[in-house]
Amino acid sequence: MKYNLRQLCLLDHNEQRIRLARLKVSHPTLICDNANLLYLTGRVFSGYIYLAPESDPVYFVKRPATLEGERVHYIRKPEEIKEITGTTRTLGLETGSLPYADAIRLKNAMGAAEITDVSAAIMNARAVKTPLEIKLLEEDGIRQCEIYSRIPELYAEGMSDVELQVETERLCRLHGCLGLFRVNGPSMELHMGNVLAGDNADAPSPYDFAMGGAGLDPSIPVGASGEKIARGKSVMVDMNGNFNGYMTDMTRTFSCGRLSDLAMKAHACSIEICESLAAMGKPGTEAKALYETARQIAEKHGLADYFMGHRSHAGFVGHGVGIQINELPVIAPRSRHILEEGNVIALEPKFVIPDTGAVGIENTYVVEVEGMRSITNAPEAIIDLL
Amino acid sequence: MKYNLRQLCLLDHNEQRIRLARLKVSHPTLICDNANLLYLTGRVFSGYIYLAPESDPVYFVKRPATLEGERVHYIRKPEEIKEITGTTRTLGLETGSLPYADAIRLKNAMGAAEITDVSAAIMNARAVKTPLEIKLLEEDGIRQCEIYSRIPELYAEGMSDVELQVETERLCRLHGCLGLFRVNGPSMELHMGNVLAGDNADAPSPYDFAMGGAGLDPSIPVGASGEKIARGKSVMVDMNGNFNGYMTDMTRTFSCGRLSDLAMKAHACSIEICESLAAMGKPGTEAKALYETARQIAEKHGLADYFMGHRSHAGFVGHGVGIQINELPVIAPRSRHILEEGNVIALEPKFVIPDTGAVGIENTYVVEVEGMRSITNAPEAIIDLL
Repeated sequence: MKYNLRQLCLLDHNEQRIRLARLKVSHPTLICDNANLLYLTGRVFSGYIYLAPESDPVYFVKRPATLEGERVHYIRKPEEIKEITGTTRTLGLETGSLPYADAIRLKNAMGAAEITDVSAAIMNARAVKTPLEIKLLEEDGIRQCEIYSRIPELYAEGMSDVELQVETERLCRLHGCLGLFRVNGPSMELHMGNVLAGDNADAPSPYDFAMGGAGLDPSIPVGASGEKIARGKSVMVDMNGNFNGYMTDMTRTFSCGRLSDLAMKAHACSIEICESLAAMGKPGTEAKALYETARQIAEKHGLADYFMGHRSHAGFVGHGVGIQINELPVIAPRSRHILEEGNVIALEPKFVIPDTGAVGIENTYVVEVEGMRSITNAPEAIIDLL
Repeated sequence: MKYNLRQLCLLDHNEQRIRLARLKVSHPTLICDNANLLYLTGRVFSGYIYLAPESDPVYFVKRPATLEGERVHYIRKPEEIKEITGTTRTLGLETGSLPYADAIRLKNAMGAAEITDVSAAIMNARAVKTPLEIKLLEEDGIRQCEIYSRIPELYAEGMSDVELQVETERLCRLHGCLGLFRVNGPSMELHMGNVLAGDNADAPSPYDFAMGGAGLDPSIPVGASGEKIARGKSVMVDMNGNFNGYMTDMTRTFSCGRLSDLAMKAHACSIEICESLAAMGKPGTEAKALYETARQIAEKHGLADYFMGHRSHAGFVGHGVGIQINELPVIAPRSRHILEEGNVIALEPKFVIPDTGAVGIENTYVVEVEGMRSITNAPEAIIDLL
């Protein structure tokens, strides 16, 4: 077995203490979202973490039946929790992810009169990564770069976008990718990432993505559409970087033969934006200032029409990433976030060029005192598959 | 493009009418869960379907920007809905999946004084499949059987459970599997299914699965654990059957050399349970009576200790399946469901045999007047990989 099956909390005491101190609840709170259970204990289980001001966390577990540790209580249903904790007037809950019916049940189970949100506080706490979290993300970046370096070997003439994606998925999984693509919020769905070839990059998706893709089926209308990869078109690869519960986000552009001058220029502009933003992004930098700089660079090169999409434009140029793909801060025009040391941010200034497809890069960066340090260090030029 | 990108509702008028008639809301209702959007329109989009008694559905779309059709309105935020629909005192919402904060926002946006649940009603409506839905599920079953027939070709001596799973995932995807594994409720997470080899089948998971598996990482503690597939052990394959937005659920058992007599006996018992339940399950049959019959057959063969798990037991022997893997009815001891014509149910009487692993089969069945008809018609005996 690769990890301790029995010990509930897999974080050492100090690591957990740092995370709890960042969160700091002001009322008794029940946590049960898988991403937050993972953040606070290092593992996913079925049950609840009870947090209260100035107290150690208490674990209420439904499954698996084998977990052990201090303050671990087995329950069949949440109504048993208050027998240990007592009731509370105000109950903190993850109102951003917990279904309404579950929230009402927990409120009643705890004898509470009102619910207060803790989702925003946890997302803010999770936005600043600990050294251990950064180490896990760095490991992801190294593995993702290894995989991307082998993508040209996977390509064969006549392949469709889906076929190239499937071979890339296999390589990811054989390198230890867990496959699961965790997203914050109920609406965005994606299978392991996107490979977007040619004009499909310009098909609008239901999600706030720079690139959409029509997908194979209306039940998941995003990503590769099954078209053959054609000469003169780009192939943008933006695949799953989850090897340990944390995800790096990385995109590289490939081509099938030479791309148009406009596409080459836009790709160079993407690299320029990443470099400028990485130099500029320090603790204290406004997220919206980063977005504005990106926009200005695209405009300076006459590329505003293609920036972050063509028929449909995404409203951001970067986003926090960690346990989930869409964490804080968001690098967007009206973002109120201020960069902090330890933020981990994916910058993805992408362009959709008509008759060519998507171009540009995406790297994941750690915000440090001197600027943003990339942890996805692979060559950034367009790689010709032919 | 493989489907109409522009037409919002991809269901023909009659098909949609049947589904809406099954649902029959008693109050103005907003639907936004992806699975339910798919059920009611044949596609996923970002937005809301407004349903009201005796009225045609109205569509409020945020993304993609290209959808067309009768009663399609574009909105930026849900507060704009009531300008078209008017307010309501009682608002129906999907309280089983909609986050609490979103529910409160919609309630306020619609000027409502109270929320009423519509999740249970939709799950009940979705439990009875239309002929079109059954056709899609039958297509899934055929493809899943093709893939399973080729699993022995994928095996190579010395492989780990994960390696065999990855090759199976690739084959599924190349056969058109969409990859996405839709689950009802926020807590269960799985990547494309499970390949469980040997004793790993007995590692308890956080979910109510017959078989658990330790998984590769505590961030997704379920399924294959990376152990080599060893002689004398079983390999249970339970992989993703989603090729069109609907999923069949199917399990077959493979072996690496001959298994113990106890394991062979349990596997035969699993087939016997499936056949008995399929003959017994007709419109009007109580779900709990099916479970009780399964339990009795296992007990008659002296296999009660291994039935639906060994160290940890699952509390059911079957479940509805369709857009999501865990639909209604549930075949469990205290289930109140009565089978109806058109239910689609996966029966999975499985056994965990110490020192061997998991054995048994799973098929997906359509409930018809004469009994349950399997739509996953592949050989059921244990297949030796050597």
